Amino acid sequence: MTNYRITLGYDGTDYHGWQLQPGLRTIQGEVEKALAMITHKRVPVNGAGRTDAGVHALAQTAGFRADLRLGTDELLRALNAVLPDDVRVFSVEEAPADFHPRKSALSKTYRYRICTSPVLSPFIRRYAIHRPMPLDFEAMREAARLFVREDDFSTFSSNKDKSPVRKVIRSEIVRKDDEIQYAVTAEGFLKYMARTMAGTLLNVGRGRIRPSDIEGLFRKKARTLGAPTAPAKGLCLVEVAYPPNFSIMTSASSGGRE
Amino acid sequence: MTNYRITLGYDGTDYHGWQLQPGLRTIQGEVEKALAMITHKRVPVNGAGRTDAGVHALAQTAGFRADLRLGTDELLRALNAVLPDDVRVFSVEEAPADFHPRKSALSKTYRYRICTSPVLSPFIRRYAIHRPMPLDFEAMREAARLFVREDDFSTFSSNKDKSPVRKVIRSEIVRKDDEIQYAVTAEGFLKYMARTMAGTLLNVGRGRIRPSDIEGLFRKKARTLGAPTAPAKGLCLVEVAYPPNFSIMTSASSGGRE
Repeated sequence: MTNYRITLGYDGTDYHGWQLQPGLRTIQGEVEKALAMITHKRVPVNGAGRTDAGVHALAQTAGFRADLRLGTDELLRALNAVLPDDVRVFSVEEAPADFHPRKSALSKTYRYRICTSPVLSPFIRRYAIHRPMPLDFEAMREAARLFVREDDFSTFSSNKDKSPVRKVIRSEIVRKDDEIQYAVTAEGFLKYMARTMAGTLLNVGRGRIRPSDIEGLFRKKARTLGAPTAPAKGLCLVEVAYPPNFSIMTSASSGGRE
Repeated sequence: MTNYRITLGYDGTDYHGWQLQPGLRTIQGEVEKALAMITHKRVPVNGAGRTDAGVHALAQTAGFRADLRLGTDELLRALNAVLPDDVRVFSVEEAPADFHPRKSALSKTYRYRICTSPVLSPFIRRYAIHRPMPLDFEAMREAARLFVREDDFSTFSSNKDKSPVRKVIRSEIVRKDDEIQYAVTAEGFLKYMARTMAGTLLNVGRGRIRPSDIEGLFRKKARTLGAPTAPAKGLCLVEVAYPPNFSIMTSASSGGRE
């Protein structure tokens, strides 16, 4: 059996998230359906990040084991020929036997897009939320930095997780034309964590809470109005990082671009 | 009666083009429906360019006459509150009495997007066509320049027009990352003209015809395989230019961005 690793991008608007759910259209479901059509077998697929309904990916990493007569380039073309056009496979490689998309990952990076122009362009309406009001950018930036820590992130998650400690490596707000983008990298994320951090920063931007309130939110260890979950459509999984021994080896077919 | 001028953008994917058609979803139809909801009257709307089904606009100009108690800012907000989110009004102004969106226009600029990367990103799939094969960019550039002329463009149109002479002011190909973009400005366009020029340039890029064949295509004055119509989704109306006396006067609410 070959251990395959694929990189894929998707517009999550019309999907119930990554994870397989009976009777619902999901990314994992589409990829498994495509593999079944190509291999005439059921091939379970693992994803690095379980993106929620409506969340996008520029570079999700997934993997599966299969015995195929196809080369990686042929498999890439076959997958894209069968998949719907809002899900695209950007690369297919043979991975080392011990590679696992989620367990081998060092970190994942999500980006959250907030459009601040008076009118939301139809061309980004699926990929950014619209907040045409004044936002205190400096306060948001200050608050974002306070998320860089290893801590109990229960306040910023919807689910009770038995091990709610996560390590955030990078948490940065940048302004780009009339857009505010929040980028967050962590070794792992709790459910809704990236969106709840974005929602908290938006609250800081609106002056509803101050950067100095972030510490108190962490200590609360429970959902609160101060830390609401921002809408799914603004979020995108932009990178999954792996250790050097799992870095891409074969000549992959281009990267995802927007 | 005030003569209103509006600038709007739209993702044309889910529309049967600009122009009103009974029983079909069109941009003009949506704008007239929105105005009817706001004014409780039927308000006919004129557009500068009659974009085809599936064609987009970053900055279409339209106009209508109405007696309203709303200010331009209120009208902008009311229109966007009522319109679907794939159609957005970027500005509303009071125009001089003799302003007409189409008749007053000096020129229109369309842009055609061709993605050449091996895999078409899900995020531009609605706005660019995919041509992952090698294209002779220099030949396309040379051919594009030959379109700058005042001539009979019958070869590059689907309809028999009784006055098929048009003046193309600018016709340029640029490369941007893994995209080829064709920009064409003309005083006016025949039906399918921009798309057929794009299709002809793609034929040049594939080596099916040479830049030196363009002259012969013009003389043919009839549809031909050498000049096929490129798909609608790659095309976008990006600018309508007006003489200085019709330049925007009021402080409009931001411009369209992608």
